[in-house]
Amino acid sequence: MRQSQLFTKARREAPADEVSKNAQLLVRAGYVHKEMAGVYSYLPLGLRTLNKIVQIIREEMNAIGGQEMVMTALQDKDLWSRTDRWDDDKVDNWFKTSFKSGGETGLGITHEEPLTRIMTEHISSYRDLPVYAYQFQNKFRNELRAKSGIMRGKEFLMKDLYSFSRDEAEHDAFFARAREAYLKVFQRLGIGDQTYVTFASGGIFSEFSEEFQTISEAGEDTIYVDEKKRVAVNKEVCTDEALTKLGLQRDDLVEKKAIEVGNIFNLGTRFSEPLGLSYTDETGAKKPVVMGSYGIGPTRVMGTIVEVLADEKGLVWPEAVAPFVVHLVSLGKGGDEISKTSDALYADLVKAGVEVLYDDRDLRAGEKFAESDLLGIPMRIVVGKEAVETGMFEVVNRATGEVVKKSHDEIF
Amino acid sequence: MRQSQLFTKARREAPADEVSKNAQLLVRAGYVHKEMAGVYSYLPLGLRTLNKIVQIIREEMNAIGGQEMVMTALQDKDLWSRTDRWDDDKVDNWFKTSFKSGGETGLGITHEEPLTRIMTEHISSYRDLPVYAYQFQNKFRNELRAKSGIMRGKEFLMKDLYSFSRDEAEHDAFFARAREAYLKVFQRLGIGDQTYVTFASGGIFSEFSEEFQTISEAGEDTIYVDEKKRVAVNKEVCTDEALTKLGLQRDDLVEKKAIEVGNIFNLGTRFSEPLGLSYTDETGAKKPVVMGSYGIGPTRVMGTIVEVLADEKGLVWPEAVAPFVVHLVSLGKGGDEISKTSDALYADLVKAGVEVLYDDRDLRAGEKFAESDLLGIPMRIVVGKEAVETGMFEVVNRATGEVVKKSHDEIF
Repeated sequence: MRQSQLFTKARREAPADEVSKNAQLLVRAGYVHKEMAGVYSYLPLGLRTLNKIVQIIREEMNAIGGQEMVMTALQDKDLWSRTDRWDDDKVDNWFKTSFKSGGETGLGITHEEPLTRIMTEHISSYRDLPVYAYQFQNKFRNELRAKSGIMRGKEFLMKDLYSFSRDEAEHDAFFARAREAYLKVFQRLGIGDQTYVTFASGGIFSEFSEEFQTISEAGEDTIYVDEKKRVAVNKEVCTDEALTKLGLQRDDLVEKKAIEVGNIFNLGTRFSEPLGLSYTDETGAKKPVVMGSYGIGPTRVMGTIVEVLADEKGLVWPEAVAPFVVHLVSLGKGGDEISKTSDALYADLVKAGVEVLYDDRDLRAGEKFAESDLLGIPMRIVVGKEAVETGMFEVVNRATGEVVKKSHDEIF
Repeated sequence: MRQSQLFTKARREAPADEVSKNAQLLVRAGYVHKEMAGVYSYLPLGLRTLNKIVQIIREEMNAIGGQEMVMTALQDKDLWSRTDRWDDDKVDNWFKTSFKSGGETGLGITHEEPLTRIMTEHISSYRDLPVYAYQFQNKFRNELRAKSGIMRGKEFLMKDLYSFSRDEAEHDAFFARAREAYLKVFQRLGIGDQTYVTFASGGIFSEFSEEFQTISEAGEDTIYVDEKKRVAVNKEVCTDEALTKLGLQRDDLVEKKAIEVGNIFNLGTRFSEPLGLSYTDETGAKKPVVMGSYGIGPTRVMGTIVEVLADEKGLVWPEAVAPFVVHLVSLGKGGDEISKTSDALYADLVKAGVEVLYDDRDLRAGEKFAESDLLGIPMRIVVGKEAVETGMFEVVNRATGEVVKKSHDEIF
């Protein structure tokens, strides 16, 4: 894409009302727009990155048998009353509103209830199990404070997968596969090395849930990391008793701030029992379905990548989630030899299927480089006088700053 | 995909609470689930079809220079107050709610206001124009009645594109391109022949807006169609005066019921003036930006395709939007020769990149065929005894009912 056509403009100054690094940089670079506190729109570059994160998660969810669907934001009060999660004194972050046709409704904070009800129409026999269904869908949470940029929004994208299994054994086997899939997702997203399976409070049906925590000073959680075993324990459950159960030694643990980028829960029959989701087993006996939930917030992950990888010059994207792979920066002016060389290289890159943002604008070199650093595209190719004279292009690695000279053929 | 793995099950009976044909069939076939009146979740087959509709629209919007982004459902009351569209006596279908942190908010019914505000940060000079930005995003409209299935939801997907132009001439040129792009979209979606550009009431800035109306008895609109000129006039504006202006003769018009599947509006400076979206022209003069809006509801389009093309046996999808292109129906039972032949053909189809739903379940042939008709996948390939014995497969065209025999090689 030609940058002269891109409608967003980068800004020199961080917005005064943003305190988090991720929002400051993403707003400055024109990736997102702040509508209100905790409410962000995704502009073209931001949406491209978000979609790449989504696609990586989708591929890994499909690989473990997930079936994609999409539920609604508007929620049925009666349904949530049956699981006792409607009242504000039980769940304190609902957005509630009402229908002109009568009756209250709320905006989905999560989707155990509606999906469990849907499954009552499709699951009746052991032959119908297991089922794994997931969605990418906007959640709404009426947060009192919003100071973490896109990492804790009042409206944010969530991938939520729910598993429906015959029994605990079948559940546990999938739970283990989901854990591996999650680790693969974070590896592919470029934050695998900083991300730890972390034991946290579990709820009714298991002693621990498992969080995926990415080490970052911007994190709201405190965790204790065993770097050798590559696991961690959330401060909230890090008692001597818990450590004994988990086979960990307090002396091996290091305290870190971390961002929760995913979590997996054993829900047991917490939802299937009150909502009547049961199946008939091989012997004809009726049993409640055993459930699990598996969340990753793509928008939070995007913010986390910024917090972890950005530097003082701006964003730094791993290639897998960068809005473009190459930033082609021309130092030419309309129609000169440099512009012609740039145009030709741009055409070749597009033809080769490379995702390239082409800075064809008539601006000073320093301004272009600063903006290029801010945007964080992994590889910058500079077309200046030298390229025209020698045929060698300057290729800059955004993450390392390494500069090499490459000929046209070496680029491809 | 193997149908034994698909979690949805088709139903024999239409749900008692649905009056519209589209919802009756889509619920029966397991494409959608009704959460509440006018609120539908999209199950795996439904989401596949919806995503194909979305992708066709996306390609045509990109082809006319659209830049994709995505805005939020939560809306800023102050912003909408500035254009006088916040009060319920001005706009009567808001869902309103409030922040725990204080203040009211509403769920986006449309997005002129937030996008105009975003553009004030990116447009300042004539060099920044024109800009065309669009999104696929869920709208919320607090409809009093919801009886048209997925065609009029309280929460529904919308593609809304907004144009930002220097002047009326530039606007008009794009408006004409958008009209052509829309006609192409409906052609690709398989309802082109039934869809007419229809003149409707225009608002402040132009005498007429243009709707895209698809002829259907399920339509809520009445239009007068000139079939030779392939244009129509909405009843609401079909006066003698209007007909004269449009160069149409009343005698050439036929009254029809129709579904509004798209619309394009000249917004003039209705939003740019109150929200301060202006630019400096070549002479240094400050001018308000001229805007247009261009909507298509992918979910409504999906319902319309059902209304127009479905028959007494069930859904009928055009290939471009079908969840799968081939429905491979095996009449075998676990492990017999028919199953083996089916498995082999399935493997070959998958390898060839054909989107195939493989009915590998152990059910009676009649049940399988009835369900196959209900699902509406364009091409059914039946593997029975004959296929094993002669190598010829029965290939059924869902839309026409035409049956032909094809060898393995003829299928590919």
